[in-house]
Amino acid sequence: MNYTNMLAVAFAEAQAGFDEGGVPVGAALFDAHGNLLGRGRNRRVQDNDPSIHGETDAFRKAGRQTNYRDKILVTTLAPCWYCSGLIRQFNIGTVVVGESVNFEGHLDWLKDAGVHIVEMNDADCIALMRRFIEQSPQIWFEDIGECACT
Amino acid sequence: MNYTNMLAVAFAEAQAGFDEGGVPVGAALFDAHGNLLGRGRNRRVQDNDPSIHGETDAFRKAGRQTNYRDKILVTTLAPCWYCSGLIRQFNIGTVVVGESVNFEGHLDWLKDAGVHIVEMNDADCIALMRRFIEQSPQIWFEDIGECACT
Repeated sequence: MNYTNMLAVAFAEAQAGFDEGGVPVGAALFDAHGNLLGRGRNRRVQDNDPSIHGETDAFRKAGRQTNYRDKILVTTLAPCWYCSGLIRQFNIGTVVVGESVNFEGHLDWLKDAGVHIVEMNDADCIALMRRFIEQSPQIWFEDIGECACT
Repeated sequence: MNYTNMLAVAFAEAQAGFDEGGVPVGAALFDAHGNLLGRGRNRRVQDNDPSIHGETDAFRKAGRQTNYRDKILVTTLAPCWYCSGLIRQFNIGTVVVGESVNFEGHLDWLKDAGVHIVEMNDADCIALMRRFIEQSPQIWFEDIGECACT
């Protein structure tokens, strides 16, 4: 599997999201042969929809599948609890993580559940996410439910 | 809080889903005063969308919120990992569970994370879900990622 090329698909989604003013997290779901099933990006800002993270958008775009054990989910950023829960519930076999520097996620929890985690530590993913968090911290914290406001 | 009346809103969604031929799980999100923010239902069959469980549909329909700690999510069925992850990531304060007989979910995991869980053990929720699982086991198992097919 060429995880670098797969990550490029997810990164293109993240970059498109950034260019739209959205949270720049992109993702893509591939089958066991590396064929693209679906690609997507966070749509909180664009669609005013808090339920669409990069991973859930790629998952929905891939349509109904009866088995995810041999599927590969590629995401530019380590998955939050919401997306980690998605991965675990549907038994997605492999998750390729662009970076876990700006958000560390719950990779050990996924590994303990038997998910194969591939960490890319990708400089472009790190830089794009860092840029967004610095320029729009309020939207970022809203997106991960960490807003301190009451 | 009148949790029985709140559950009736979620159950009406589940019943509508059942009547449409879909997975009969409904949910609703309320604010701290009991005002309805959003209601929804599983849409796997209706929209061919695997990403929309009852809880995620109610969450999206409620629109962007900056704080969920004082919110109440009511669902007819114990949340799966996907929806449990949603609850935990966004720090939803209270979850009212119609039933956990047909699917036990991960209520202890949510409690350990500080979520206030209210179990209703509702006979109508149990009966509707049981009826669906008996008549459409394949769709049900697909919906929770437990299909044994390869």
